[in-house]
Amino acid sequence: MTAFPEVSKIRYEGPQSNNPLAFRWYNPDEVVAGKTMKDQLRFAVTYWHTFRGTGADPFGGGTMHRPWDDGTESVENACNRARAAFEFFEKLDVPYYAFHDRDVAPEGGSLSETNANLDAVAAVLKEEQQRTGVKLLWGTANMFSNPRFMHGAATTCNVEVFAYAAAQVKKAMEVTKELGGENYVFWGGREGYQCLYNTDMKRELDHLGRFFHMAVDYAKEIGFTGQFLIEPKPKEPTKHQYDSDAAACLNFLRSYDLTDHFKLNIETNHATLAGHEMMHELEYAGMQGALGSIDANTGDLLLGWDTDQFATNYYLTTQTMLVLLKYGLGTGGVNFDAKVRRESFEPIDLFYAHIGSMDAFARGLKIAAKIIEDGALQQIVDNRYGSWNSDLGKKIESGNASFADLESLMLDKGDAKPNTSGRQELLENIVNRYFDIA
Amino acid sequence: MTAFPEVSKIRYEGPQSNNPLAFRWYNPDEVVAGKTMKDQLRFAVTYWHTFRGTGADPFGGGTMHRPWDDGTESVENACNRARAAFEFFEKLDVPYYAFHDRDVAPEGGSLSETNANLDAVAAVLKEEQQRTGVKLLWGTANMFSNPRFMHGAATTCNVEVFAYAAAQVKKAMEVTKELGGENYVFWGGREGYQCLYNTDMKRELDHLGRFFHMAVDYAKEIGFTGQFLIEPKPKEPTKHQYDSDAAACLNFLRSYDLTDHFKLNIETNHATLAGHEMMHELEYAGMQGALGSIDANTGDLLLGWDTDQFATNYYLTTQTMLVLLKYGLGTGGVNFDAKVRRESFEPIDLFYAHIGSMDAFARGLKIAAKIIEDGALQQIVDNRYGSWNSDLGKKIESGNASFADLESLMLDKGDAKPNTSGRQELLENIVNRYFDIA
Amino acid sequence: MTAFPEVSKIRYEGPQSNNPLAFRWYNPDEVVAGKTMKDQLRFAVTYWHTFRGTGADPFGGGTMHRPWDDGTESVENACNRARAAFEFFEKLDVPYYAFHDRDVAPEGGSLSETNANLDAVAAVLKEEQQRTGVKLLWGTANMFSNPRFMHGAATTCNVEVFAYAAAQVKKAMEVTKELGGENYVFWGGREGYQCLYNTDMKRELDHLGRFFHMAVDYAKEIGFTGQFLIEPKPKEPTKHQYDSDAAACLNFLRSYDLTDHFKLNIETNHATLAGHEMMHELEYAGMQGALGSIDANTGDLLLGWDTDQFATNYYLTTQTMLVLLKYGLGTGGVNFDAKVRRESFEPIDLFYAHIGSMDAFARGLKIAAKIIEDGALQQIVDNRYGSWNSDLGKKIESGNASFADLESLMLDKGDAKPNTSGRQELLENIVNRYFDIA
Amino acid sequence: MTAFPEVSKIRYEGPQSNNPLAFRWYNPDEVVAGKTMKDQLRFAVTYWHTFRGTGADPFGGGTMHRPWDDGTESVENACNRARAAFEFFEKLDVPYYAFHDRDVAPEGGSLSETNANLDAVAAVLKEEQQRTGVKLLWGTANMFSNPRFMHGAATTCNVEVFAYAAAQVKKAMEVTKELGGENYVFWGGREGYQCLYNTDMKRELDHLGRFFHMAVDYAKEIGFTGQFLIEPKPKEPTKHQYDSDAAACLNFLRSYDLTDHFKLNIETNHATLAGHEMMHELEYAGMQGALGSIDANTGDLLLGWDTDQFATNYYLTTQTMLVLLKYGLGTGGVNFDAKVRRESFEPIDLFYAHIGSMDAFARGLKIAAKIIEDGALQQIVDNRYGSWNSDLGKKIESGNASFADLESLMLDKGDAKPNTSGRQELLENIVNRYFDIA
Repeated sequence: MTAFPEVSKIRYEGPQSNNPLAFRWYNPDEVVAGKTMKDQLRFAVTYWHTFRGTGADPFGGGTMHRPWDDGTESVENACNRARAAFEFFEKLDVPYYAFHDRDVAPEGGSLSETNANLDAVAAVLKEEQQRTGVKLLWGTANMFSNPRFMHGAATTCNVEVFAYAAAQVKKAMEVTKELGGENYVFWGGREGYQCLYNTDMKRELDHLGRFFHMAVDYAKEIGFTGQFLIEPKPKEPTKHQYDSDAAACLNFLRSYDLTDHFKLNIETNHATLAGHEMMHELEYAGMQGALGSIDANTGDLLLGWDTDQFATNYYLTTQTMLVLLKYGLGTGGVNFDAKVRRESFEPIDLFYAHIGSMDAFARGLKIAAKIIEDGALQQIVDNRYGSWNSDLGKKIESGNASFADLESLMLDKGDAKPNTSGRQELLENIVNRYFDIA
Repeated sequence: MTAFPEVSKIRYEGPQSNNPLAFRWYNPDEVVAGKTMKDQLRFAVTYWHTFRGTGADPFGGGTMHRPWDDGTESVENACNRARAAFEFFEKLDVPYYAFHDRDVAPEGGSLSETNANLDAVAAVLKEEQQRTGVKLLWGTANMFSNPRFMHGAATTCNVEVFAYAAAQVKKAMEVTKELGGENYVFWGGREGYQCLYNTDMKRELDHLGRFFHMAVDYAKEIGFTGQFLIEPKPKEPTKHQYDSDAAACLNFLRSYDLTDHFKLNIETNHATLAGHEMMHELEYAGMQGALGSIDANTGDLLLGWDTDQFATNYYLTTQTMLVLLKYGLGTGGVNFDAKVRRESFEPIDLFYAHIGSMDAFARGLKIAAKIIEDGALQQIVDNRYGSWNSDLGKKIESGNASFADLESLMLDKGDAKPNTSGRQELLENIVNRYFDIA
Repeated sequence: MTAFPEVSKIRYEGPQSNNPLAFRWYNPDEVVAGKTMKDQLRFAVTYWHTFRGTGADPFGGGTMHRPWDDGTESVENACNRARAAFEFFEKLDVPYYAFHDRDVAPEGGSLSETNANLDAVAAVLKEEQQRTGVKLLWGTANMFSNPRFMHGAATTCNVEVFAYAAAQVKKAMEVTKELGGENYVFWGGREGYQCLYNTDMKRELDHLGRFFHMAVDYAKEIGFTGQFLIEPKPKEPTKHQYDSDAAACLNFLRSYDLTDHFKLNIETNHATLAGHEMMHELEYAGMQGALGSIDANTGDLLLGWDTDQFATNYYLTTQTMLVLLKYGLGTGGVNFDAKVRRESFEPIDLFYAHIGSMDAFARGLKIAAKIIEDGALQQIVDNRYGSWNSDLGKKIESGNASFADLESLMLDKGDAKPNTSGRQELLENIVNRYFDIA
Repeated sequence: MTAFPEVSKIRYEGPQSNNPLAFRWYNPDEVVAGKTMKDQLRFAVTYWHTFRGTGADPFGGGTMHRPWDDGTESVENACNRARAAFEFFEKLDVPYYAFHDRDVAPEGGSLSETNANLDAVAAVLKEEQQRTGVKLLWGTANMFSNPRFMHGAATTCNVEVFAYAAAQVKKAMEVTKELGGENYVFWGGREGYQCLYNTDMKRELDHLGRFFHMAVDYAKEIGFTGQFLIEPKPKEPTKHQYDSDAAACLNFLRSYDLTDHFKLNIETNHATLAGHEMMHELEYAGMQGALGSIDANTGDLLLGWDTDQFATNYYLTTQTMLVLLKYGLGTGGVNFDAKVRRESFEPIDLFYAHIGSMDAFARGLKIAAKIIEDGALQQIVDNRYGSWNSDLGKKIESGNASFADLESLMLDKGDAKPNTSGRQELLENIVNRYFDIA
């Protein structure tokens, strides 16, 4: 039986192709910037949106037609769904996928039953991974959907909920290890607050720090060597998430002595909800040595919630790839944390959506690589900071200048020499030019 | 000669007073929460808005009527203005003021002339401080108005501009010390970027770290013992300020080993532009031991720029005082970084504005103090986190529990016990009740 | 059997009361501004949030404990729930409630079955109305939850869905008439678009105009004389709702010749999502003769989605009541389109929430009434516009001045006379004073 | 003497060109969609940003180097500046320009002197228009910069200011007529409010309606036949502008019986500040028969103020041109209401900025024209609404169906037929494809 009988394996046909089920730019084995596109982009499909998204929103129920899914919470259905998912991964030709524990297997009546369910499905996942060669980019634990986590998981006011969360992450780490997951991600969907009047922020963050140290210890104990990642998001579902942006995450990691063990998984729509461009968050994380992976999607900047749309904007993908080519993705990937619109309810829409975004990232990769190769932006940047390569610049940068030294210089000169134009408009034109020539 | 002939010293007349030139709540010598209101609130008037604000905005010129100011950039006018300012401080009965170097004294044709101008005016300020007993809360250097700083000051791409900024801060620190300033503030108005295409963020932040270390060294050299403060703001004038919020500031300070020397000056309107409530930023800074002082104003949450309005909202002032009473203000103060609206162009409006906001903070202080005294919120918070005082909670908090321990417990229990209601609505009602009874 | 055994009828105990289950300000029979509070405020409880809200959000399932509800979609459960609701209305002492068709009765397997279900429950509602004296403020049809409405109801691209919506509204109007509903509301939850590329906006709006004319015709046919209301909201669930704000609604009504038949139901959280203060939308609707009713809630201005929180802010309730006292509510009411937070899952939280907001509106009513009685704001407004009462002002206002007349005058005068201060800060202080003395 | 000695006339060199002073896409005489690019796009340069922009912002003074401008407010300097402007227009090869009265000529000591200054400069403008063939797209009056307008112009509380505004618009209309202006624009920079407490919104809008009727009468009197345009903007400089968006403008025009005389000038950055996409505002205005002209710029969606940046984003220009090709521009144009960044202070940056944006609109024109020619989006839209072409659809659209008819149909059918997918992702992919093939 096949879940997507109408779709064959998606092939590269080139930019002129009018086939909506072909790649126009993503050509897996084409070498760009010294690596194949496949290795540069390390695409992953997310299980939660693509195989568990129902189309429900706060104003209405599910809309999605998913013929392979019988709608039950049985383990059998979960196993069938997993097989449909791998058919999708294969046909789409992506090397990776990612999941939460509760996406792949249903919750049982007790923790032990829940764990058994997860083991049963994990066996199918492992089998399918072996059959197809598709790998696990990362695993994670869903500690936000179940009502027990209403006040948080690691930051809950209820100590037993904390204990439950610990047990759940322990299991999710074990399964991730078993499946060869290359990373383990923490997104703290309920780690934040709704109201400051009833919240002890310091105590909650101390608990979160404690929780992460236990995770580090347990990884060591079981020999899990995947990279730990935390994921910034400023709000939603809570009024204020603790991991609000890259800087807040890094300040937390520094405060609790966790920087050696964690990097960041940066998401476009979370960046913009926090008031930052994706390129900013990527550069900030990269500059601090903490860029781990990306959740590739886009938001609607005129809306104030996480829309998790598929990214097709070439400016966004170009900017993203400019930074990823600079810092590298390591064990991370370009993970499609994106969902088809509620009205795009047919299975075929899943293909259109992924193909379009894979193409957009491939296009962004080629544009970014060509800009870098030509030094098209870098030359202007180098020129702009040229004065810092002077003796004076070197003296300051090396820590050998004092306020008194610099005052003495300036009293002598009277004022600073003229600046050079920032040339922002020219730079924007240059990027447009690469859209046309790359 | 007098600048405000129509106004006498503002007196406390009590809540029923209908005199718009009297305090209804601010009663300087009344003891609240163990200190006089004067010592709890440590109000400061800002020189820039109140004595240099013209009412100009991006769409129109200045509107303010300031009869004591002849509109010239002469040192003489600057000295006259300073005397008018102290008349205002005295009549308003505030203990502190704050200024930028360029507010009080005009820029000259060269750095040495500029410094001489500043010395000349500083002499008048010192004389007026001695005459009136009004003290300097903090000094700072304006490194954003002059076009030389278009690309930044400590983060400029032009090394000579960096040197100029260093010289300028050196002088401003000296003058602050001379005038007994209790703090020195850095607000990096141009320390950020307009465009990522032309920006080397890492190099700019390295320069900023270097700059602050020079400032620390120079303070030590001259024996300036005031507290250094940096001030978070996410944007405006730049597209993205480096010191975007408390977390970003603290991550920067940690990255560059500066946490021992700097605290934060938290501003309401900057907090909200960054997507945080003022109470969040205060609590975050307080919890990290970095709450230094506040810029007391308010923004308009439906507008996307810094409106710097006088805070009169009792909810805001109550929330602010709840946190300030918790962590203390130290050498900081409640500094009115606020300006009268462009259409409130008469000198008398300056009094209305300050009186209204001083009253609002005094009211917030009384409400907050009573809430704390009664434990009205704290009881509910204590109850909410009660489970953490169990043996299990203590074991986890002390670092003696592992994932395996907690899993074992939860496998046994099967699931976590029910949660308790967050009671947000009740808490909001309780705060309203204190408006009526405090 | 009782749904709320622990709660007796809520009584007025006065501002000092520390009883969280008493009113501190809402005193139904107290006369304020010439009417009893009950008649001024015309409070209504919403069935959807208070009796159908589950606490589910996009990241997690329901949390609410509702012991009277067996969780099934049976008509019997619907009837039991209705009785619990009326117990709540009675104990809370509210004169009105409001509902959607799908809130009160479950959808059946066909339209006729669905209608029969609604009739069955409506009979219980009628009986309970008669028993308690609680009345129906308005009815409405839910045309957004069912997936059939994914592309809209009256603005759908599917003509049969339009027909279904017409049938549904017909029935909802009949039931509203049967229950003596004083208004009928249209909130077009899916009347908007997700994407302009696939949308024919003009054709969709033509359909909407057509739909409303059919509703007008049908009301006439059956003798339903309640007021029709439409409800502005800018976005969510669609990317862009057609009825985005009061001005857009009124331009639509004017374009389709519907102004005689419709007024507006203004909601706080919708106003602010559209970038307007609630007071603006109320004044705009009032000034255009179109203020019909209000959905009383509040949003969180730092969040970009509709949080539908209970309003407790005295500034908001005072501003709202200032406008409602000016224009009157007519057949409208203060309808609590608000939900307890997901973490406030106990039945008692429903009482705390409503009591707190009823008190806040009662407090706002008293403050607003006193401000109006004293002319405390009006005097300043009158003075500000005083020059328009001159002969020149009258000539212009009556349409007897031309550009040439006014140019001639100004060529003679040379420039306009000075302005008067806007006095915004003083006005804000005056409002605060009324918090203390009203 | 020449203002731009280093720049020759800008020529088209094609997409591959690496010359930053050549057009890559704008080829004035190339025919696209049945007209030359020049006639399709009708580009205009704005005098205010390009020749009066100083680079000042709320935090710092002017930065721009403009060697042809002596910095004085003399009429002579104004005439020299006008000649420099026409040199720029010519070299850039734009067919139009636009100005405010106060941009081109300085304010004098009295209205008559001010008018004389304007006449003097207008004579130069006329001469330069004749010399170069560059035409005036529109004129307008600046009634926001001078402090007299602090409370508004047509909506001021000061009747003499209203009279002054009338006189000013009279003169500006005369000069616009004299120079052959094809439109006359009203942007009410101060027509709004800062504070509802001191504002009589209804009276202010009545005055605005009166003002516009006087303008209509005067145009008739002098035989000015250009199109009147008003320009939506939601906020800034006021807290709330009355002409907040297209819908608010049109509701105002309908309320005051002005729809026959006014159309809209839609600006990108104003659209987005109001929470709408540019494409929405264009379609809304177009659908209502009121699309007059556009102010072509872009904002930064992460910033909350009007940044007036040059539009270079191909998605924006494509979407804009899709609507403009649908409704036509009439006597309107693509007017660059955009300014170079404060840091782009060299004269050459003016060329880079305009060239890049002209190219981006030319590119958008070609992509949009090809999409339309191929019916690439339209086919999917037609299919989506296909059911409305049925007998049932026709019956409803023609006004021949009632609620009872539709209920009868649906009782029979039981439910509506399934929907079709919205295909948003596919549509986004199709647009990307046209980037590559157009």
